[in-house]
Amino acid sequence: MNGADLLCETLLANGIDTCFANPGTSEMHFVAALDRQPRMRCVLGLFEGVVTGAADGYARMADKPAATLLHLGPGLANGLANLHNARRARSPIVNVVGDHATYHLQYDAPLTSDIDSLAWPMSHWVGRTESADAVGERTAQAIAAARTGAGGISTLILHADAAWTETSAAVPAVVALPSPATPDPARIREAAEALRNGKRTTILVTGTALRAPQAEMLDRIGQKTGARIMAQQANARMQRGAGRVALDRVAYVIDQALANFDGTEQILLIGASVPVGFFAYPGKPGLMLPEGCRVIAMADADDDLPAAIAALAQETGMAPAARLTEHGAPDMPNGALTPDAIAIALAHLMPENAIVCDESVSSGRDFFRSTHGAAPHDFLQLTGGAIGEGIPMAIGAAVACPDRKVIGLQADGSGMYTVQGLWTQARERLDVVTIIFANRLYKILHGELKNVGAGAPGENARRMLDLDDPALDWVHIANGMGVEAARADTAEAFFDLLRSAMSRKGPFLIEAVL
Amino acid sequence: MNGADLLCETLLANGIDTCFANPGTSEMHFVAALDRQPRMRCVLGLFEGVVTGAADGYARMADKPAATLLHLGPGLANGLANLHNARRARSPIVNVVGDHATYHLQYDAPLTSDIDSLAWPMSHWVGRTESADAVGERTAQAIAAARTGAGGISTLILHADAAWTETSAAVPAVVALPSPATPDPARIREAAEALRNGKRTTILVTGTALRAPQAEMLDRIGQKTGARIMAQQANARMQRGAGRVALDRVAYVIDQALANFDGTEQILLIGASVPVGFFAYPGKPGLMLPEGCRVIAMADADDDLPAAIAALAQETGMAPAARLTEHGAPDMPNGALTPDAIAIALAHLMPENAIVCDESVSSGRDFFRSTHGAAPHDFLQLTGGAIGEGIPMAIGAAVACPDRKVIGLQADGSGMYTVQGLWTQARERLDVVTIIFANRLYKILHGELKNVGAGAPGENARRMLDLDDPALDWVHIANGMGVEAARADTAEAFFDLLRSAMSRKGPFLIEAVL
Repeated sequence: MNGADLLCETLLANGIDTCFANPGTSEMHFVAALDRQPRMRCVLGLFEGVVTGAADGYARMADKPAATLLHLGPGLANGLANLHNARRARSPIVNVVGDHATYHLQYDAPLTSDIDSLAWPMSHWVGRTESADAVGERTAQAIAAARTGAGGISTLILHADAAWTETSAAVPAVVALPSPATPDPARIREAAEALRNGKRTTILVTGTALRAPQAEMLDRIGQKTGARIMAQQANARMQRGAGRVALDRVAYVIDQALANFDGTEQILLIGASVPVGFFAYPGKPGLMLPEGCRVIAMADADDDLPAAIAALAQETGMAPAARLTEHGAPDMPNGALTPDAIAIALAHLMPENAIVCDESVSSGRDFFRSTHGAAPHDFLQLTGGAIGEGIPMAIGAAVACPDRKVIGLQADGSGMYTVQGLWTQARERLDVVTIIFANRLYKILHGELKNVGAGAPGENARRMLDLDDPALDWVHIANGMGVEAARADTAEAFFDLLRSAMSRKGPFLIEAVL
Repeated sequence: MNGADLLCETLLANGIDTCFANPGTSEMHFVAALDRQPRMRCVLGLFEGVVTGAADGYARMADKPAATLLHLGPGLANGLANLHNARRARSPIVNVVGDHATYHLQYDAPLTSDIDSLAWPMSHWVGRTESADAVGERTAQAIAAARTGAGGISTLILHADAAWTETSAAVPAVVALPSPATPDPARIREAAEALRNGKRTTILVTGTALRAPQAEMLDRIGQKTGARIMAQQANARMQRGAGRVALDRVAYVIDQALANFDGTEQILLIGASVPVGFFAYPGKPGLMLPEGCRVIAMADADDDLPAAIAALAQETGMAPAARLTEHGAPDMPNGALTPDAIAIALAHLMPENAIVCDESVSSGRDFFRSTHGAAPHDFLQLTGGAIGEGIPMAIGAAVACPDRKVIGLQADGSGMYTVQGLWTQARERLDVVTIIFANRLYKILHGELKNVGAGAPGENARRMLDLDDPALDWVHIANGMGVEAARADTAEAFFDLLRSAMSRKGPFLIEAVL
């Protein structure tokens, strides 16, 4: 057994049996080791942003890490944007990044770079394996770090000689996962007291507080105490739809986000942070809370949020039943295809237990309004604002949950970032329907340019913010990567296409021309 | 005038009039400033790897920097792989990376990350502009750093509030470019003496030593002294073809690279580094030189290489004339389409002054053999080994040289990395013909897996190294992004397609099925 085999065995012993990969020469011994291990499922991405985004989507749905396999500093760099999103989502991931043989670094060969400096901004843990004997223990540390608290990004740098050298070191004992931090009773009591003081209160939540049972409990606490329950702006995973509690999220647009907290006298944080502006704007505040609003940080992101909510319920009491949304959808409109028509069609047609991966950016802002009564589903968001996550996230969700329909809500501009992911959907026959919101511009940026007070965009601004001239033909692009596709430009045509896409298995793409 | 205007004015005052861009909200004031400046050409890339790779290709052909515009840490991260290549090519680039307003960083908003840590591994200079008044001076420093020595990567982090705040600071004086370091006479004399000692000598060169006049002078020195002239394995730009000196490069494959230096007793470095293995392999050396080979570092990469070569010629004398290659090409083969048939077709059909951007990886290894007598052209290579540079590099070369035909030799695996660049070729009507070497696998890695001794690849290895199932349809992909395309699977069909592509202007793609 060599170091690469030891790494592979250690991952498998800890239940990490999926590896999203784009390997290179320095990782070839690890590829050979994976080849000797049919228990490991290897999924190729044709770009590293696909690899890391898929690992993020997988972690969110599997509640455990996948491994990634990346080729030196540049391969890691290509995957960093979606690791940024994963880090913000607190998704557990174990990155394996190849590096030159230890003794080869001195030569500054062309692919040499400072991998640690690249890795740290998007990792919770970074480590190197400098000998084959050490690979097992280092891998165990990486796994432990990834599974601590709410979840973390571990980046394990595997030197080529550590991979290819024979070792007699044993596979380490299965990593004992640290118990999640139990909620601090004093903080729970403080929170419960605050909920009795009659002030206008928002309970802001994220993470596992957004699973269906926790959302129900929160709703019952809210009914009992008069507090409003809200999810933060972007969340790794929300369980919602018919038969579940309808939670709203904080808005992205700054004036709406400020309005969300208008009159709020105190805010209770469960896993969430104090709400801040996604960006700064001249003359507008960075904090979304009104002046003087009291902040009660009841449970941190790394705490055991379900236990914290249960403890809070003990203190406050609860209403006898949660207010669950009834199944239903608004009437399907006719005529022009709009983002709202797409949402309503989905509300009608989404099957039970679908997984919705949302990177619709500006086009999807009203999705919630129409889909509270859709069939129950999981809703996964872009958590770090680094676009190019939607198509890969759908890959990961589909690999984690092969029996569930995955629906990608995909803006066209961000879809182009990791468009290669469509090929992986075809290769793996994943049950993903991607809906491209083809507005043919970076619409969000047109809005921002207006906010800046720059007036009507001129030639240079239009050339940087518009995606026409030429328009992207998503049907051709998808077909070129092996994914069947069709175009709709009316509400009726979209409804029909979506119905047919929902009734079949396998990848499909709908270009929704807005 | 605000800070963004000051930045724009400072760039323009220093001759930087091209900006490859993918902006976001935090850069919107810079977008507005660019919009007020029609003198600045803004070229949109639909992914930041396209942006930075284009800036690299532009710098190589324009011999001056372009600016890039990137969106915070993740936007920079997406562009790092091609900045890695540009850094290895010593291409001057001025990156402008937006960051949050200074006072907003404390809130750790979703897109916040440690931009400095990300930037340093791929930059020669990193700086922040923390006030509008300081923007001009900081920009001047960034430009100076990019134009020092052979060229460097400057990363200027522009805080949103520095961009939007009004300033009365003046545009700084045009940056005085430091003169390139003059060659050290003692080193020149040492080199000239070594060339007289009768030992088997290789003169290894790169950078501006590979422009046509320098190559001629080197050839004349070589004739006079008996030394062999070679280019290093990967070079930013070589001028070659008929009427020029035919130089060979060090091989990529380790055993061939070792053979290149078999029997070499001394090596004279002009801009080049000591040749090392691209990767380490078990039981093979990292240095490509035979034991005891003397190394004479005559001129460093940052030195004035043309002056160094002229000074060396003064010391050694030169043969009266360089050996220039005659125009001609091997006979065009019939039947199966092979990489060699593609090279021969190009040798026949390339117009004068074409620019060849080579990311053909394993398929292009024999390109030189057949094209020494092709029409004179510039040959641009992947210098850092980070794949995904070819399509973007062609964009940059075509923007820099709108009157020259640009030919991309593009492996399929690496082409998928930044496939979005095809859209920019269409948008800008660039005169680029992209030839996809569609072997439908990461062929180089199949070779490496074999070298590892792993035997025939099994299921997991094949799923990570093969690009079939489904095969990529490059004609559909290119069409989807607005680029006309066609497929060839015989030598004859390829020749006909290439001839027609050479006779028209504008982007075209040929999928060469191997």
